[in-house]
Amino acid sequence: MGASLGELAVRFGCELRGDPQVRVDHVATLAGAQPGALAFLANPRYRGQLATTHASAVVLDAASVAAFSGAVLISANPYVTYARIAALLHPPAALPPGIHASALVDSTARVDPSAHVGAFAHIGAGAQVGPRAGIGPHCTLAEGVQLAADVQLVARVHLGPGVRVGERSVLQPGVVVGADGFGFAPERGRWVKVPQLGSVQIGADVEIGANTTVDRGAIEDTVIEEGVKLDNLIQIAHNVRVGAHTVIAACTGVSGSTSIGRRCVIGGSVGFAGHISIADDVVVSGFSMISRSIEHPGVYSSGIPFEEARIWRRMVAHFKRLGGYERRVRALERSVGLTAQKESDES
Amino acid sequence: MGASLGELAVRFGCELRGDPQVRVDHVATLAGAQPGALAFLANPRYRGQLATTHASAVVLDAASVAAFSGAVLISANPYVTYARIAALLHPPAALPPGIHASALVDSTARVDPSAHVGAFAHIGAGAQVGPRAGIGPHCTLAEGVQLAADVQLVARVHLGPGVRVGERSVLQPGVVVGADGFGFAPERGRWVKVPQLGSVQIGADVEIGANTTVDRGAIEDTVIEEGVKLDNLIQIAHNVRVGAHTVIAACTGVSGSTSIGRRCVIGGSVGFAGHISIADDVVVSGFSMISRSIEHPGVYSSGIPFEEARIWRRMVAHFKRLGGYERRVRALERSVGLTAQKESDES
Amino acid sequence: MGASLGELAVRFGCELRGDPQVRVDHVATLAGAQPGALAFLANPRYRGQLATTHASAVVLDAASVAAFSGAVLISANPYVTYARIAALLHPPAALPPGIHASALVDSTARVDPSAHVGAFAHIGAGAQVGPRAGIGPHCTLAEGVQLAADVQLVARVHLGPGVRVGERSVLQPGVVVGADGFGFAPERGRWVKVPQLGSVQIGADVEIGANTTVDRGAIEDTVIEEGVKLDNLIQIAHNVRVGAHTVIAACTGVSGSTSIGRRCVIGGSVGFAGHISIADDVVVSGFSMISRSIEHPGVYSSGIPFEEARIWRRMVAHFKRLGGYERRVRALERSVGLTAQKESDES
Repeated sequence: MGASLGELAVRFGCELRGDPQVRVDHVATLAGAQPGALAFLANPRYRGQLATTHASAVVLDAASVAAFSGAVLISANPYVTYARIAALLHPPAALPPGIHASALVDSTARVDPSAHVGAFAHIGAGAQVGPRAGIGPHCTLAEGVQLAADVQLVARVHLGPGVRVGERSVLQPGVVVGADGFGFAPERGRWVKVPQLGSVQIGADVEIGANTTVDRGAIEDTVIEEGVKLDNLIQIAHNVRVGAHTVIAACTGVSGSTSIGRRCVIGGSVGFAGHISIADDVVVSGFSMISRSIEHPGVYSSGIPFEEARIWRRMVAHFKRLGGYERRVRALERSVGLTAQKESDES
Repeated sequence: MGASLGELAVRFGCELRGDPQVRVDHVATLAGAQPGALAFLANPRYRGQLATTHASAVVLDAASVAAFSGAVLISANPYVTYARIAALLHPPAALPPGIHASALVDSTARVDPSAHVGAFAHIGAGAQVGPRAGIGPHCTLAEGVQLAADVQLVARVHLGPGVRVGERSVLQPGVVVGADGFGFAPERGRWVKVPQLGSVQIGADVEIGANTTVDRGAIEDTVIEEGVKLDNLIQIAHNVRVGAHTVIAACTGVSGSTSIGRRCVIGGSVGFAGHISIADDVVVSGFSMISRSIEHPGVYSSGIPFEEARIWRRMVAHFKRLGGYERRVRALERSVGLTAQKESDES
Repeated sequence: MGASLGELAVRFGCELRGDPQVRVDHVATLAGAQPGALAFLANPRYRGQLATTHASAVVLDAASVAAFSGAVLISANPYVTYARIAALLHPPAALPPGIHASALVDSTARVDPSAHVGAFAHIGAGAQVGPRAGIGPHCTLAEGVQLAADVQLVARVHLGPGVRVGERSVLQPGVVVGADGFGFAPERGRWVKVPQLGSVQIGADVEIGANTTVDRGAIEDTVIEEGVKLDNLIQIAHNVRVGAHTVIAACTGVSGSTSIGRRCVIGGSVGFAGHISIADDVVVSGFSMISRSIEHPGVYSSGIPFEEARIWRRMVAHFKRLGGYERRVRALERSVGLTAQKESDES
């Protein structure tokens, strides 16, 4: 196992400074590296660790070469190059093809012979499982689910009726895709359930984090386009569309029928109202409340950083008295004969 | 399958404008409908789609009749009427009565012969499962659980010891009801676990969304009253009571011993402090921090809508300097001989 | 069953006022207690209930003795004493040693004979399960997992490869420990998965609440130190460290590589940015956005309590116009010849 720096430089298109015969057999952090390890520098805050690392080689960019005296693989994108080398040095354990003796597969389901179906998995009527797909232990696939080639359901993933998952997508443990959307019609102080008849389409190369939920559509499908990455504990409501290559951090909720564009970057603990539309290439800071549509690319925020509680309480008290301050300013303006400026919506 | 418009008008008490012989066999959105489909108009923002829909009939209210030239079922509550017709046209697959061969049912549990127990389900000692209840694959019912008639546990639902679920309630995949509440007593910098000895009572016609958690009570029970609808990824702490017919949207957390009234409508990503009481008929906007009791019906909020980040940062900077502004206003008032107005708590 | 007040006073070091022969056999709330019950008073808001309780004895502190005429166990820390008596009177059902016939244990795993492995549990290659550990139904332990003595996995817990759990720790249903961290490197508008090669170390006496997720480290391990208590639906990202005896309430998210100190108390629905460091003994109020490191013990906040929506909307409108107000104050200062005070960051 392992690889020589010369091989890595050729394979991943890096410039090598150092002995091409040197071998690395695992990855490590700069601070934790021992000889034999390959490390990387992508976040400049760790540059100081170059002076003391014991790594046999470091992946970094041209601007950082001078800060390190050992062997380097120079890459325009050190983090991506590191990711590819790490995948080479640490290949995931291959799942054996075949269906575990304890799994239950409906007689009308079609499972490719190269696919893996793990312990206690349950695959419903008419489901289709593509080549090399890996279905971990305790997964439940309802009727009509379709998994494309190389899909990985790590463990205990639930897919509701008719859910389709594209090639190479990875669903982490605890994910629920295709539960009923939250649709209830009010009638005289009670709620009548609205049948949730759509399903969920998940594109290729999607990742969905642990215990995240993606609800089935009310009539048409909820859609997660290709390349989307969803972190843990995210809620995607019915009939949402998340555009290709968008990433969303943990604990964020997206309300029903909202559409998020392509290549967006959404922070954690964000909330999106329903029935709104977010443009492509939008960045939303963590803790933002997205209460209306966003039509243009850009960065958007609404979280307020913390303060010491005694200071914060005073700030909040001032905030709640703002109307009174405005009246006092107006009174002052009248008193000195100033005309109140037109109030500006922009701070 | 399918139904004629005449039959639907009679069954659901609608006025029909159009040919009573026309048949519909599925529901669709206005935009996506093809002939044979029944669509509906409840949200006025979609009214423009009436002009181009290919639906064979549309459910709408009297005010919208003039906007559509095709067959209509006129209802005072088109969304509820649509929901009922959708349930008629798309009945859920019936679960076969009986216990799946792979399920494990304790010898002291009582399962009604008309109930369905799915693959790999595990039913503990003394549990009771009522008529026509449906227990999906991978559900785990601890000892003493009681399910009333027609309860549906869709899949992979966990119910802790003694949890009771009322008639017709539906629990989506990943739900955990009756895990220990978060009770720890501090002692010299460590935490001593407080036994969580209560259980959870869930009323009739409740719905609980995917991966939502409802903790067991510390001594007495946590209570979810009849008709409550909880969305996905909600946390209900120990000894909370949620009043009948209240709905709560996703990602909201309710802290211990808090009581929420009847017919409340709670938005997503809301947080409730512990040991507070919320009146009946309260509406809470999404992203609100409910830090004290609410005694009167009304609408309550504390979220601030987003802005472009560069504008938002300036707003936050101003916010954090509010104390300074107040001092400047006071200095101005002194300077011009104005008496500071009494500060008002109300903006 | 049950115990006399005399026995309890001796065993738990309380002063007894009343008949030592009186027996109690269960715990109850002050309001709900019947004869035979032991109740406690820890939260002063319930002191009024002492006058009417039917409890046979009450645990309380010296300051409250005069408010109750019945038998009392006087404790400097009534909540801890109550917790210990409750555990004595209500011992959890003992899990029988041995491996359930339906469980699947890899031939290379080592399970202590005194441990319990429940129905449909799945234990992977090389896993180790310590003495008296309890693995509930539907748990999945990937290869190399190590459980120390007396660990309890209540039900349906998933532990990824190499996860280690310390003595006596309790993981509630739906917990996922050791799913892949959220690591993706951007490359030309797409995201390349960064292999997540670390694991998770969980110390002794930790509790993790239902459906909480703790991700595996990217290279080194994610670490939850001893005595930490995590509530439900919490997200702990890769390479986070949570210091010993820290408690975190529900719906909080901690971003990658952030370090939280020892003995911190973190409220619910809090969000922590990544790569920051929080000192020991920090208290964070619920709903706070922790966007930068905290170097000193103290209490920190950033949530704004709610108001009636019509009032709140005015406050937000004022907030968004703060820049205009500041300009008006400056104009007033110029007009009356006042020098603008130096703006203070502290309100």
